[in-house]
Amino acid sequence: MQYPKALQNLIDKLSLLPGVGPKTAERYAFYLLNKDANQLTDIANSIYNLKQNVKVCHQCLAISESSPCSICADSSRDNAVICVVENIQDLIAIEQTKQYNGKYFVLGGLISMIDKIGPENLNISELSKKIKNGQIKEMLIALNFTLEGETTALYLQKLFKDKIKITRLARGLPAGSDLEYADSNTLKNALQYRSEIK
Amino acid sequence: MQYPKALQNLIDKLSLLPGVGPKTAERYAFYLLNKDANQLTDIANSIYNLKQNVKVCHQCLAISESSPCSICADSSRDNAVICVVENIQDLIAIEQTKQYNGKYFVLGGLISMIDKIGPENLNISELSKKIKNGQIKEMLIALNFTLEGETTALYLQKLFKDKIKITRLARGLPAGSDLEYADSNTLKNALQYRSEIK
Repeated sequence: MQYPKALQNLIDKLSLLPGVGPKTAERYAFYLLNKDANQLTDIANSIYNLKQNVKVCHQCLAISESSPCSICADSSRDNAVICVVENIQDLIAIEQTKQYNGKYFVLGGLISMIDKIGPENLNISELSKKIKNGQIKEMLIALNFTLEGETTALYLQKLFKDKIKITRLARGLPAGSDLEYADSNTLKNALQYRSEIK
Repeated sequence: MQYPKALQNLIDKLSLLPGVGPKTAERYAFYLLNKDANQLTDIANSIYNLKQNVKVCHQCLAISESSPCSICADSSRDNAVICVVENIQDLIAIEQTKQYNGKYFVLGGLISMIDKIGPENLNISELSKKIKNGQIKEMLIALNFTLEGETTALYLQKLFKDKIKITRLARGLPAGSDLEYADSNTLKNALQYRSEIK
């Protein structure tokens, strides 16, 4: 006795999702089995239409509904600053702070020895071209504070440090943090980059 | 700046899956975004075709490819014993032990005060009909050893105890268990249902 083929097929497909094992896939499949046909068609269509309706902005390489995207097309934003992010998720996180008024550039990943991602797999040649244009004065590196993020940041620094001003996000204690439980790297950074109270 | 509509739409749909919040749904959606159009069509189709290709066996009420299902159609299996399970997952778990050679009946749920599921929401009238036929001599109750499972088992016992022999799965220590860490209910059952070594 096995699951009906159509069900097993869906379970196999859902098991491919990141972090989803066969048991979770089963749970999702049974959830879907209890939905009516209209709702299933709805979900199927939204997967089917995904690629057709999502574009990549040719300027910042972020996924977007239009190219150029609404940020690149916005003339009120500062063209002299470019914020380099790993992906659209990070871009949106920064946008939500409403503290940044420059443009963005999506790198499309981080250099990683483990995952065999080298600089040639990232959008670095497009970034070089943009910087050669000469309009950009500052590159704000906004990458994860992880091994991969740091490696990538270092690579970008070496590549562009003679051409433009390079900045990076501040390091220190996160909001709501308890000194007692802060890890030593965070605390080290918080000490090293301490600021004067005026 | 927001995600493109097609992407946000898919994220919203995926958030409806059990145990999936917006962040996990985002992760799934980005995974799908990196697949090529063929693979997406494939996944969409397997969701779309789910309902069409999954039937319910009219005898045991398990989902199946055909009706009657392969178990109900199997004449080598014992018609005198019926194993009452909550759902197809439990049925398959029991089948995998290869220790049971009777038929099954899928109840479709468990009585639950919290989820407002009463006996009338389960396939109990179909079960009554089957038992009235007189062919079944033993009902093996194979329901979860939880509040809901116990409540449902008790209900079935009251309903059918005068009509047929009722048995239930044994209780005791699970395989590989450590006495020190066994909970007191398990241990209580293990003591109460201790068996003689011959």
